[in-house]
Amino acid sequence: MQLQLLTWPEVEAYLRTSRAIILPIGSTEQHGPIGLIGTDAICAETIARGVGEAADALVGPTVALGMAQHHLGFPGSISLRPSTLIAVLRDIVESLARHGFERFYFLNGHGGNIATVSAAFSEIYAARSLAAAVDPPALKCKLQNWWQSAAVQQLIKELYGDAEGSHATPSEVAITQFAYPAAIKSARLDPPVAPRGSFTDAADYRRNFPDGRIGANSALATPEAGRRLYEAAVAAIAADYRQWAAG
Amino acid sequence: MQLQLLTWPEVEAYLRTSRAIILPIGSTEQHGPIGLIGTDAICAETIARGVGEAADALVGPTVALGMAQHHLGFPGSISLRPSTLIAVLRDIVESLARHGFERFYFLNGHGGNIATVSAAFSEIYAARSLAAAVDPPALKCKLQNWWQSAAVQQLIKELYGDAEGSHATPSEVAITQFAYPAAIKSARLDPPVAPRGSFTDAADYRRNFPDGRIGANSALATPEAGRRLYEAAVAAIAADYRQWAAG
Amino acid sequence: MQLQLLTWPEVEAYLRTSRAIILPIGSTEQHGPIGLIGTDAICAETIARGVGEAADALVGPTVALGMAQHHLGFPGSISLRPSTLIAVLRDIVESLARHGFERFYFLNGHGGNIATVSAAFSEIYAARSLAAAVDPPALKCKLQNWWQSAAVQQLIKELYGDAEGSHATPSEVAITQFAYPAAIKSARLDPPVAPRGSFTDAADYRRNFPDGRIGANSALATPEAGRRLYEAAVAAIAADYRQWAAG
Amino acid sequence: MQLQLLTWPEVEAYLRTSRAIILPIGSTEQHGPIGLIGTDAICAETIARGVGEAADALVGPTVALGMAQHHLGFPGSISLRPSTLIAVLRDIVESLARHGFERFYFLNGHGGNIATVSAAFSEIYAARSLAAAVDPPALKCKLQNWWQSAAVQQLIKELYGDAEGSHATPSEVAITQFAYPAAIKSARLDPPVAPRGSFTDAADYRRNFPDGRIGANSALATPEAGRRLYEAAVAAIAADYRQWAAG
Amino acid sequence: MQLQLLTWPEVEAYLRTSRAIILPIGSTEQHGPIGLIGTDAICAETIARGVGEAADALVGPTVALGMAQHHLGFPGSISLRPSTLIAVLRDIVESLARHGFERFYFLNGHGGNIATVSAAFSEIYAARSLAAAVDPPALKCKLQNWWQSAAVQQLIKELYGDAEGSHATPSEVAITQFAYPAAIKSARLDPPVAPRGSFTDAADYRRNFPDGRIGANSALATPEAGRRLYEAAVAAIAADYRQWAAG
Amino acid sequence: MQLQLLTWPEVEAYLRTSRAIILPIGSTEQHGPIGLIGTDAICAETIARGVGEAADALVGPTVALGMAQHHLGFPGSISLRPSTLIAVLRDIVESLARHGFERFYFLNGHGGNIATVSAAFSEIYAARSLAAAVDPPALKCKLQNWWQSAAVQQLIKELYGDAEGSHATPSEVAITQFAYPAAIKSARLDPPVAPRGSFTDAADYRRNFPDGRIGANSALATPEAGRRLYEAAVAAIAADYRQWAAG
Repeated sequence: MQLQLLTWPEVEAYLRTSRAIILPIGSTEQHGPIGLIGTDAICAETIARGVGEAADALVGPTVALGMAQHHLGFPGSISLRPSTLIAVLRDIVESLARHGFERFYFLNGHGGNIATVSAAFSEIYAARSLAAAVDPPALKCKLQNWWQSAAVQQLIKELYGDAEGSHATPSEVAITQFAYPAAIKSARLDPPVAPRGSFTDAADYRRNFPDGRIGANSALATPEAGRRLYEAAVAAIAADYRQWAAG
Repeated sequence: MQLQLLTWPEVEAYLRTSRAIILPIGSTEQHGPIGLIGTDAICAETIARGVGEAADALVGPTVALGMAQHHLGFPGSISLRPSTLIAVLRDIVESLARHGFERFYFLNGHGGNIATVSAAFSEIYAARSLAAAVDPPALKCKLQNWWQSAAVQQLIKELYGDAEGSHATPSEVAITQFAYPAAIKSARLDPPVAPRGSFTDAADYRRNFPDGRIGANSALATPEAGRRLYEAAVAAIAADYRQWAAG
Repeated sequence: MQLQLLTWPEVEAYLRTSRAIILPIGSTEQHGPIGLIGTDAICAETIARGVGEAADALVGPTVALGMAQHHLGFPGSISLRPSTLIAVLRDIVESLARHGFERFYFLNGHGGNIATVSAAFSEIYAARSLAAAVDPPALKCKLQNWWQSAAVQQLIKELYGDAEGSHATPSEVAITQFAYPAAIKSARLDPPVAPRGSFTDAADYRRNFPDGRIGANSALATPEAGRRLYEAAVAAIAADYRQWAAG
Repeated sequence: MQLQLLTWPEVEAYLRTSRAIILPIGSTEQHGPIGLIGTDAICAETIARGVGEAADALVGPTVALGMAQHHLGFPGSISLRPSTLIAVLRDIVESLARHGFERFYFLNGHGGNIATVSAAFSEIYAARSLAAAVDPPALKCKLQNWWQSAAVQQLIKELYGDAEGSHATPSEVAITQFAYPAAIKSARLDPPVAPRGSFTDAADYRRNFPDGRIGANSALATPEAGRRLYEAAVAAIAADYRQWAAG
Repeated sequence: MQLQLLTWPEVEAYLRTSRAIILPIGSTEQHGPIGLIGTDAICAETIARGVGEAADALVGPTVALGMAQHHLGFPGSISLRPSTLIAVLRDIVESLARHGFERFYFLNGHGGNIATVSAAFSEIYAARSLAAAVDPPALKCKLQNWWQSAAVQQLIKELYGDAEGSHATPSEVAITQFAYPAAIKSARLDPPVAPRGSFTDAADYRRNFPDGRIGANSALATPEAGRRLYEAAVAAIAADYRQWAAG
Repeated sequence: MQLQLLTWPEVEAYLRTSRAIILPIGSTEQHGPIGLIGTDAICAETIARGVGEAADALVGPTVALGMAQHHLGFPGSISLRPSTLIAVLRDIVESLARHGFERFYFLNGHGGNIATVSAAFSEIYAARSLAAAVDPPALKCKLQNWWQSAAVQQLIKELYGDAEGSHATPSEVAITQFAYPAAIKSARLDPPVAPRGSFTDAADYRRNFPDGRIGANSALATPEAGRRLYEAAVAAIAADYRQWAAG
């Protein structure tokens, strides 16, 4: 169930069966010469919808903009400042809490979001922890990266080994190819496996990773592998969600 | 062209031909008993993509969350505070300006966004107007509501007359039916044409408009009318965009 | 009644008869070669005081600074950022709500304030809409531009027709001449009717409108016309206020 | 010269002779049973205009709202949060600095503003102190309370001795009586000299000072004493301003 | 008692005897050629611990960073913006208030903090003063500078007379020498007594006070004088604290 | 070298040899019945000073307050909101960058800080990444937890095995016992090994972990083990710092 495609009476009915919602969060940022700018949002959204079906869970609108300051050296990348993203997540959670939602399962497609999303959870909790007397209904937030389960990690290892890398990875590119086969790109990757390393701001990132990839050979991606990764992620996350939402 | 489905070198190439981008902005809020919660985002996104094709323009990711505080009395509605939405729009514009984008055409699906989006433009401009010496490249922002053109207004009048109303209107519902025919809902609307009036906060809104609609008979919507509205809006806005982007 | 000229026991007594207050809001910004920098604040304040007398309403202190970023290319203009103005209006409303005021009628003298003031209302309402359980006393805010009524529009049309323009208009200059006859200025306006058009930031504004006026021939202003405009505005707004405050 | 009553070319001309401006700042808060709510703004504005004439100085619009949180227990009092007032003062100074103003002389009518105004100066300076390389034109801000000079202190002592107190003082009430003779109020003050002491928030203040006055016998005020205080303050501050503006 | 060296059950026990806490606040900023960068934090912390022992009071962790924008022209100086320091103090007070603390005695080592700390108190109080209905337990904040008492002022006068100055004073340097005898520095001070005057931002400060001192001959400091100053300050402040905490 | 115990000319000299600084960051929060409230700050500070000596590195003042919202159910715990901590870290880095520091090595003692400190780094970088043209000197920030190295992990495993847990761990308590032998506490821990699990806000935390510990048997701590942990951590981190600072 997508929240966007329901009416409010349908949401009201859903709330009688569950207090949990899945919120896909991605990013809009360069993913190298053949990865799509929307890769992280597409992965999060695609898998979230699969999980929604598998677990009869409501899926909210995709937060397509994330914390991507390090990618701003490449055209088309958009970043929210951490402070902005914290405000966005706070407003989402507070809005839905108004209606009785109590569990917020953020399905994440972007490693760069992890710290800021966690900080946002703390900001939300802090408002409640600092509030003197009242004991408001408990809110529970969780961040789950789509690639996080043992099954998906295993599959990635089998498929790509060391060429998976950490940005513009063949696994995430594969999922976008599965989701948007009409948007498969090709370009010569030189070197095939991109350099590894760390980075600070956008200028430093571009200096270290001239075509945008980190340690990845995106060209190994195929839509078929994307389908397998999608299925593995949906199965693992649906199981996790079901348990967490009931816990 | 959807930004999400391009690579950064493709965006780099686009920037050699145009400095403009279309940014759909909607809201996630109740639209009465048969209107979808995603109505405003769906309308903005659907029409923006049509305009993108018609005008060879780049279309950014949809800002699916808007200023919807007055709808928070209905389950599923999510609102950004105005101050949060201003920060989001500032970050989007500043990110894209970093790459050479200079014109930002926000295609809007939600009347409740208008004031805050305009204030956000002023916040963005103010940073430049207050900056002492430098003369940075000029940024130009525009807000265009999808229903704003004479042609669309005329068509709405023909189709629905007074039953169009101002929230959960048959015209916006029709566009979502055209875009998502599998998600067409039905329910008894009582009264068929909802009351009119003004509102302040969420409690006041729900008191005045018990099922969420304002002045509208959403049940008049049809997917076929949605197609006609879509086509009229795309044609009008593509023409406006072309002229504005070149101006 | 001006709040500034009352004591707190007098305000306490007023609150037993009314929960409404008029708050004039203007701007401090260039108004062309003969318009005063305080034009918008003077118009709002002068008319608000007239309305206060006509409707036995309390009139708060004038918010003399508004959102005027586009005028910062001209000496003497002062702008609040939209985010600052939102904070100011929130603090005003929350302060007065503390004492039992429930209706806030902002009488506005500056078109550039409209979006930000509306966003401020939403920010104020949002705090209440997001608050979970409590049902606090309803607050109601309204923005009324002094030039907004049919009667005033008609009079402006008769007096100035197309030469009214949209900034440094003869009508607003006339009201300041009526209010401050000792401060009537004269200068050669070239061309008499200023160019029309749109603008973004301060540099863009000054480029497009070299002497600060937009579409207006300020030289047509006379104190006598100012008196007529004042009277028409006071009558129309007092009627509107009375009805709204009682509604 | 009042900024509000000048045109921008007149301000441009002024800037060729001086880079300094006087900015009156007051508050809108209870001043006991006979003191006006606008007392602090009226004192600051009245004296600032006198100084403007005496010293050929430009006088900006009065900041009529100050930091008055402790007075919120009394109807009609309006407070800006310190963080809001800091933002307002920053925007004022940055706006005027854009045109070449370099010296900002805040003429203050409210003791409760002193800490926040000083913090605002530091916030403004901090932005410059933290800016890496550039050496922007130096800005210089000063806070001057109207009652601060030796001459005024001496006169207050002569006039009221210990009955001056520290809030709703006969000296400030006298100045408002001189400025607005039509708004002179009377009421029985019981006790004639109000209690002294300290306070924290609004509830604490009202508990300690039931009619709003601190240590003052406001009833000793006369318009004639107001005139003398006004003249003494104008003379002392005009001398200080001249020296400071030239320094 | 240092909070840092207690367990939470010990704090719980303390709260059964007192609702007050001492919070040392200093700064991290240049103190001339022989004064330590930590001077203000060291003075506040050292004296606070003495007061804690003398008055059986709990002493919180030292806020070692203060408002020091004017010192940023000298290596090693760190400043919080006033708005940041206000947020820090608000979070500290709100955290401790959560556990039942009601009295917050800030023992200050830095003149530059005074305005911002006072503004922070007002920001904290304002949140309560603006809150409509509830009457939360009263919070009471106090700022006490270590040098503020008559006894300490007298001793400083005896020891240093005019050579005390106002920054990098021999008295504060002496206290650090008493506290950290291993970190006593020496350097030629030229001139021995530094110039006096005012300042705005960091560039202005460095221009006016080339070696960082204002009006002080830091070289007069001795650890023995430091001990005497320490003892005088502890005695005076412990007495003040005891009375205030019990009041 | 402690920054607090140097003069500014000594810092200036240091900057000729290194652009790096170590900044200890901890927290002020409950650590169970026998752990000190200052545990995290003490561990970070103690080890940072050891590293400073071992690596000839400058050590800044300890940030003793961290993100500890979940501990606010226990007396004495103080939390900064994530947004406040981000502002503090930004101000620290920007202040020191003003003098030529380019590398900021945050030595962390509190797991709850990790996400927010990382978000703060991104906020700092984002300001630079969003800045249009200029290429400012590169800043590099690193977060290093004291327990993070293989050597320390190995030692902890040997010493405590599963009884290490994750809050109020015997290893961190041991380090505080080594650092402050006079403040060693004892109390009956029941059960000896605390429960494990997750938490959200302060109420949830206290419900799940009644005495504040998570999975730890703090009573296993000894000052001698603290010394060994200290030495292992200093050695590992000094090596890491040297390489990073030179990289």
